[in-house]
Amino acid sequence: DISSNQYANLYQGVKDSKINLNQPLDTFLRRHMGPSPSDTDKMLSTMGFKDLTEFVKSVIPPQILELNPLNLQAPQDGFTEQEMLKHMTQIANKNNYKVKNLIGKGYYGTILPPIIQRNVLESPEWYTSYTPYQPEISQGRLESLLNFQTVISELTGLPIANSSLLDEGTAAGEALLLSFNAHRRKKNKYIIDKRLHEQTKDVLKTRCNPFNIELIEMDCYNLEELTPILENDPQVFGCMVQYPSTDGSIIANETLTRISDLLHAKKNTFTMVADIMALTLLKPPSEFDADIALGSTQRFGVPMGMGGPHAAYFAVTDKLSRKIPGRIVGISKDRLNKPALRLALQTREQHIKRDKATSNICTAQALLANIAANYVVYHGPQGIKNIAKRIYGLTTVLAETIKKGGIHKLTNDSWFDTLTIELNEKYTSEDFLKLAFEKYNVNIFANDSKSVTLSIDETVTTEDIEILTKLFNEGETLEIDFNQIPELPQEVQRTDEFLQQEVFNAHHSETAMLRYLHRLQSRDLSLANSMIPLGSCTMKLNSTVEMMPISWPQFANLHPFQPSEQISGFLELADSLEKDLASITGFDSISLQPNSGAQGEYTGLSVIKKYLDDAGQSHRNICLIPVSAHGTNPASAAMCGLKVVPVACLPNGSLDLVDLNAKAEKHNDSLAAIMITYPSTYGLYEPGVKEAIETVHSHGGQVYLDGANMNAQLGLTSPGFLGADVCHLNLHKTFAIPHGGGGPGVGAIGVRKHLTPFLPTNSIAPPPTATTKSISAVSSATYGNALVLPISYSFIKMLGNKGLPFASIMAMLNANYMRSRLEKYYKILFVNKENGIDHCAHEFIIDLREYKEKHVEAIDIAKRLQDYGFHAPTLAFPVPGTLMVEPTESENLEELDRFVDAMISIKGEIDAFIGGEGKGNVLKNAPHSLEDIVSSTDWETRGYSRELAAYPLPYLKYNKFWPMVTRLDDTYGDMHLICSCPTVEEVSEE
Amino acid sequence: DISSNQYANLYQGVKDSKINLNQPLDTFLRRHMGPSPSDTDKMLSTMGFKDLTEFVKSVIPPQILELNPLNLQAPQDGFTEQEMLKHMTQIANKNNYKVKNLIGKGYYGTILPPIIQRNVLESPEWYTSYTPYQPEISQGRLESLLNFQTVISELTGLPIANSSLLDEGTAAGEALLLSFNAHRRKKNKYIIDKRLHEQTKDVLKTRCNPFNIELIEMDCYNLEELTPILENDPQVFGCMVQYPSTDGSIIANETLTRISDLLHAKKNTFTMVADIMALTLLKPPSEFDADIALGSTQRFGVPMGMGGPHAAYFAVTDKLSRKIPGRIVGISKDRLNKPALRLALQTREQHIKRDKATSNICTAQALLANIAANYVVYHGPQGIKNIAKRIYGLTTVLAETIKKGGIHKLTNDSWFDTLTIELNEKYTSEDFLKLAFEKYNVNIFANDSKSVTLSIDETVTTEDIEILTKLFNEGETLEIDFNQIPELPQEVQRTDEFLQQEVFNAHHSETAMLRYLHRLQSRDLSLANSMIPLGSCTMKLNSTVEMMPISWPQFANLHPFQPSEQISGFLELADSLEKDLASITGFDSISLQPNSGAQGEYTGLSVIKKYLDDAGQSHRNICLIPVSAHGTNPASAAMCGLKVVPVACLPNGSLDLVDLNAKAEKHNDSLAAIMITYPSTYGLYEPGVKEAIETVHSHGGQVYLDGANMNAQLGLTSPGFLGADVCHLNLHKTFAIPHGGGGPGVGAIGVRKHLTPFLPTNSIAPPPTATTKSISAVSSATYGNALVLPISYSFIKMLGNKGLPFASIMAMLNANYMRSRLEKYYKILFVNKENGIDHCAHEFIIDLREYKEKHVEAIDIAKRLQDYGFHAPTLAFPVPGTLMVEPTESENLEELDRFVDAMISIKGEIDAFIGGEGKGNVLKNAPHSLEDIVSSTDWETRGYSRELAAYPLPYLKYNKFWPMVTRLDDTYGDMHLICSCPTVEEVSEE
Repeated sequence: DISSNQYANLYQGVKDSKINLNQPLDTFLRRHMGPSPSDTDKMLSTMGFKDLTEFVKSVIPPQILELNPLNLQAPQDGFTEQEMLKHMTQIANKNNYKVKNLIGKGYYGTILPPIIQRNVLESPEWYTSYTPYQPEISQGRLESLLNFQTVISELTGLPIANSSLLDEGTAAGEALLLSFNAHRRKKNKYIIDKRLHEQTKDVLKTRCNPFNIELIEMDCYNLEELTPILENDPQVFGCMVQYPSTDGSIIANETLTRISDLLHAKKNTFTMVADIMALTLLKPPSEFDADIALGSTQRFGVPMGMGGPHAAYFAVTDKLSRKIPGRIVGISKDRLNKPALRLALQTREQHIKRDKATSNICTAQALLANIAANYVVYHGPQGIKNIAKRIYGLTTVLAETIKKGGIHKLTNDSWFDTLTIELNEKYTSEDFLKLAFEKYNVNIFANDSKSVTLSIDETVTTEDIEILTKLFNEGETLEIDFNQIPELPQEVQRTDEFLQQEVFNAHHSETAMLRYLHRLQSRDLSLANSMIPLGSCTMKLNSTVEMMPISWPQFANLHPFQPSEQISGFLELADSLEKDLASITGFDSISLQPNSGAQGEYTGLSVIKKYLDDAGQSHRNICLIPVSAHGTNPASAAMCGLKVVPVACLPNGSLDLVDLNAKAEKHNDSLAAIMITYPSTYGLYEPGVKEAIETVHSHGGQVYLDGANMNAQLGLTSPGFLGADVCHLNLHKTFAIPHGGGGPGVGAIGVRKHLTPFLPTNSIAPPPTATTKSISAVSSATYGNALVLPISYSFIKMLGNKGLPFASIMAMLNANYMRSRLEKYYKILFVNKENGIDHCAHEFIIDLREYKEKHVEAIDIAKRLQDYGFHAPTLAFPVPGTLMVEPTESENLEELDRFVDAMISIKGEIDAFIGGEGKGNVLKNAPHSLEDIVSSTDWETRGYSRELAAYPLPYLKYNKFWPMVTRLDDTYGDMHLICSCPTVEEVSEE
Repeated sequence: DISSNQYANLYQGVKDSKINLNQPLDTFLRRHMGPSPSDTDKMLSTMGFKDLTEFVKSVIPPQILELNPLNLQAPQDGFTEQEMLKHMTQIANKNNYKVKNLIGKGYYGTILPPIIQRNVLESPEWYTSYTPYQPEISQGRLESLLNFQTVISELTGLPIANSSLLDEGTAAGEALLLSFNAHRRKKNKYIIDKRLHEQTKDVLKTRCNPFNIELIEMDCYNLEELTPILENDPQVFGCMVQYPSTDGSIIANETLTRISDLLHAKKNTFTMVADIMALTLLKPPSEFDADIALGSTQRFGVPMGMGGPHAAYFAVTDKLSRKIPGRIVGISKDRLNKPALRLALQTREQHIKRDKATSNICTAQALLANIAANYVVYHGPQGIKNIAKRIYGLTTVLAETIKKGGIHKLTNDSWFDTLTIELNEKYTSEDFLKLAFEKYNVNIFANDSKSVTLSIDETVTTEDIEILTKLFNEGETLEIDFNQIPELPQEVQRTDEFLQQEVFNAHHSETAMLRYLHRLQSRDLSLANSMIPLGSCTMKLNSTVEMMPISWPQFANLHPFQPSEQISGFLELADSLEKDLASITGFDSISLQPNSGAQGEYTGLSVIKKYLDDAGQSHRNICLIPVSAHGTNPASAAMCGLKVVPVACLPNGSLDLVDLNAKAEKHNDSLAAIMITYPSTYGLYEPGVKEAIETVHSHGGQVYLDGANMNAQLGLTSPGFLGADVCHLNLHKTFAIPHGGGGPGVGAIGVRKHLTPFLPTNSIAPPPTATTKSISAVSSATYGNALVLPISYSFIKMLGNKGLPFASIMAMLNANYMRSRLEKYYKILFVNKENGIDHCAHEFIIDLREYKEKHVEAIDIAKRLQDYGFHAPTLAFPVPGTLMVEPTESENLEELDRFVDAMISIKGEIDAFIGGEGKGNVLKNAPHSLEDIVSSTDWETRGYSRELAAYPLPYLKYNKFWPMVTRLDDTYGDMHLICSCPTVEEVSEE
């Protein structure tokens, strides 16, 4: 039994205003929870509950309630905020962040301009917003992402860029599959140059596996070797090279052209992985007719942060524009024919195409893409060119002194920022790295026992070059001429002017930049404005204490390939977080590598697949997925080469166990897995979940539990307790990592013991869990989006064993309170007497389908909510024509009531519309922008007043977030695809 | 001659896009300056100048141009941003910030809630705004300051509180003078309890001096001694006690009542200096009929920061409401009869009353008052009570163990948080402090050689108490009972409920607090929105790099009485800043103590007075002040006991040298000083300044130069070069400290060698400049608002010897460019052919007096500018009916043009109004709030459209800051004075 002592009295002390000398007062619990003790009492009494214990007993089916308390690595009552900061400082100081990391290999020192650090990375207005699916209240971020796309498009020379992917490795994976799909998967050989970064090769290898694609690693500099294959092997469908290569050298222009020509002769696809900084000086991929260009934008101001989060870019030719994975921002127009931005071509995406999708990617790295875009806005085209020139200059000076010194041998004869050096025979790489670190406080990279690589970056000074000169000259100081300004050889230099648009040439003073950032921010609705009640998204508090360590150099400056003894603080944090997540999921092991939810699904299924292969069950390829599942589930299964078989749901929303049984029976010999979400995507605790799991197990399948709804489980039940084998966790939902306006995410997975040996590894820096059976990397860095892990770590440690379950309870209390108020006005899907379900879990669905025949659509209500200052709940998922509401535990009673009152007021507007009253038109014209109110001239004919449009409830006069544009025309935008800022010429033509 | 090489080519490198391997690219210069190199060229060419050199030669009279370059303690080209942060880290790490400072004495450890740190202290939206003189665009801060006043009013029990004073000491000084003035300065004895903080006594002593007030220090606990004096001495006009006293003891309730009664019997004034935290538990000053209560609010979340900035509070009875010094926020109504906030009773202030003013204070500590107010909003009444109870509880536990240990003797038998201990004879205080620091990492305070004091604060934990127990028990651990919760004796406890207003009981979750702060912020115009072109206010960039160290514990955690060897980083910074400011002013010494501009004036004149006294010239008491001077000048002179004699100005704005000569001649024997502003308050380089200075000197007077316009002098001329003896510097203007929405300020003064011995000291922690001739303290802490000094330090070090003059040049370029565009539409005061003045310096005056007879007032234009998204320029100073514009160097050409275009557009509206066109009414109704546009029903009758009201220029559709209320009714508010949030009862009555 759940005792009242365990959770429900957590607020008692606060309510009684008693203090305890032993307990500091800055406890996190009461700051994280929205409802105060008295709010809680009011809500319980409104719903007719005596106390929280009774509430919990009524909501959670007894068979799924787990009574073993959590066993977290944290003080019993959690750390207080100040204790947390102190503890985090201690951990942070165990990292060597003062060493100069010149390891390179895709991760470079960079200067995050302080104005961007303070006003984007550290600004809740930027980091707490959601993916810009509601464009009318997201024009700021969308503008910034359009800037990002413009930067990518102009630097690569390719016309279409997306608004970021997860990292360079996964972007390469997407390029591989795009190329593969171009020939309808009928060819199966892909060529990569041997000089790709190792982690990129790793991820490609993983991606090839499910489709039996043969990855052929070659020396693409060697046309004699390459040409026959490209000309003659009918199975080859594409080729990928890196520019500059991982050793620093730059593949010859004529070689690139030749490869491209050979590929195109067979309609094959040419992909260039290109360094974004180098592209400011080198000829762009478009000059070589590349079909795809991709890479990381980390070095545009984003901290290395142990390998992530960083935004990868991905650009394609016009021909491929509708096949590009990920999100694209496009220009369309609104109801008033004003230009307005929104996400384009969403019909491509996996939530529409399900298992027919060609990519399962949804989360991007919006916050990091925005940092990179703003880095360019702040520096301007000449500024980034100057940074690149200085990097090239210092690299060249160093190269010359190495040559002049003559002790070691420089092996690349072309370079941008990276030099590979064959060591004098006296040295091994190990000795040399040790010398570099211990004597010169520099980290470089060992390629093998005799060869090292290092990369010069934006932060490197002439003093650093002097130190490196000593390193490569046995302590001698050579005379160095810093007065020269070396230039790249003429033939490789790009000559075009780029980024001439006004936005990249107007905000170069700090004052101008501050205003630009503020202007963008003020156009976006974030958690700083109001509740974002998106079902299945868990938009909870991202607390300041959790966020602060992100900016600390002790975490931000770490390189993912830094020796483990230099990063023991981070490793301690990761280990402890894994243990805590294992306790929470009821599993044995955790991998933090997947850097998005979809990536977590992919990883979990890959681990299952590898386990089955290892057990001689590689023929098992059927994945059961309920029809109610999020589209990403079938897409991820398809990416793992699994065949999706849907399982029906009953009219009451529950999984159809009869159908499940039948399907499991039918596919008894080939059943690989089932993917289920718990609580269900309908927000219900399905009582039959254990039975379903047992059924699948009994037919030899593994059980994958989608962790999107983990916020209803914390310490109350767990995937392990329910019997599942794998789950993924959206740390950016349940575990307080902010959504960042569309990323970063973390899709950590938990597995039962038998799956532990198969968790993903990394060939350069394998995690402690790595075994010979590990699947290869699913993302570039060992710990994925490592820099945001301190957030989840702090969240868990500050709530502690009792606070975590309390959070889930409060989330359910909030949801049920809203449901109970709204059910008097709206139909709540599945939760009703007839269905025998009295309560939802942490979210519920408002069913608006009955209004469709009266020409009121769910989207009208969603858009009208913007006029009330709210972000819409989740629209049309999991059921078309509905809104799914998830308040989380961080909203207080006042805010819940404000939202409910808005919905009740809208109900009146729906009735008016159906009744033919003029004021009902307010729904169809929603949202109303400021400009609409001020400047439109048709107000007399609308049937409702400006006052009703703008201030339908009194609180809005005091506090209203205004949509900046009116309702967007999606079709227009998709038909007239424009995905970058207009050029100066285009502007002047207008 | 000013060579073109020296300054004008600073932009050459940037323009040519040349890089230099020796020079990192993150130079501050191009970020701080608004105009880009190409902007600069355009502006010069618009005005017909060949280059900057020619411009400088045309603007600055040759006789005042100084050719000796600056000699700053900084790299020749200044630090780059990253170098600056690195340098600052090195300095910061020389401070011992890990020691537990329990020194107390007015400065206590406190927890700044992280949500407030990030969203107020570190938010440019909060810290870059100006004093809320334009209430329609300042409703957020005004609401927060009203919260502050409400907190003070309810905790003291007194009905009227101001919105903060500079610190506890100066607030005590204001109380003294308020009491003195109550009897028209006819009585001259003031009694203070000996248990006041030493620094408060110091400041009182300084304040008494000019008025020959006798400060009588007594044991006010001893009624036998006190009563006869209060009853019989006809010269006594008031008395001040501290509550709790500096030794920790609490004066008996009946003693307080008795003192109060005795004072009131003679119509004398009773002042209580009360600890704000203690007031949550102790009976409020109102219970003892105190007339004035004052104190520091530092411990409500504001870092100790070496002694400042902190907000002092000041509350009075109704009777004194119109005599209260400083700024008061009051509730009034706007044009639409909506409640709206604004600064009340401004006619009391020194800029109106000049030398008749009873206080020269104008700057407050708005940013810190807002932090303190938000601390209470976040914790709520029960929360702050709990913090106080825990402090009292831990103090009591410690007191008991000291008694129980019996080694040392606890001397106070009552306490809130402070204990005074007479040491066992084995110890001297010096030994004991050393022991505390070296063995236990704790700082405490030595009262004398045998007695120590320590104060427990919000940050103290049971572990700290255990450590202190060991300290006081020769290393022994006594058994301590932390399970008790000691309560203050019943008779001293306050019993009323306070702060029941909704605002203090609604935002206790972090999410709710984030939204509240964001909502307030969004109602305020700051530099994040647009230019704030206030003449004489120098609203330049407050850069992120400059601001970052403010939050570092290495500065924030320092106690002003910490031993100097523990704060060598800070002392190094202060010393270097003083040297740099000496170089910039051309003087020999600097005092950083004055914590506002007015305070700087007061200090400068006090130093002059002391110098004259010392030279046997104490009869010199005449201060010449030009009629054009800011009202603070005569007020400050009056506060120093000087008699103000005005000097005329010529019709062309220049000082009337003939009148000056005559006045100097007339007062030859009694001339003490002249106060002049340079460039003049009209923004002009008066060529006769040197002659004026020589005249004053020749008549035995000293020359005080007001540094308000220092931004036109940097490295081009200097007070020292011009011949002055003293100047003050507004570090919050010229030297980049943000205005904080109305403070903090720093009014450092510079003096010539003969005045150095007289610079202010501090009796507990004297500065290195202290001599036996030093004047006593002008503010509580040795270094005044110490925590913001790193800002000016960084500003100077990053610009360097060439960048500083370049900043002044760019400021003048911006001003003259605007002037040259505007003079085609408006009359520019004094700058015209007839006057023989071709150029302004860094600011200029738009003369609108001609429109007055046509019923267009300057205020109409000021308010209309809000509709264009701008803060008005300075209104009615230095000339009524005018606007004074100062753009600073940080605004770029686009923003200058945007402002000029707005003014040109307004000119059209003025013409329309005068011509009787309906659209002219838009001026009179300005500003237009959102609610006015949406909800007003009289639009048909206005004669202009909503479109014209809201979007008179196209850029406003994309980016507009909206006033939240319409034009305020000042008279109504002053007649119906309401200065705190309505109580719950008042709200429910409505």
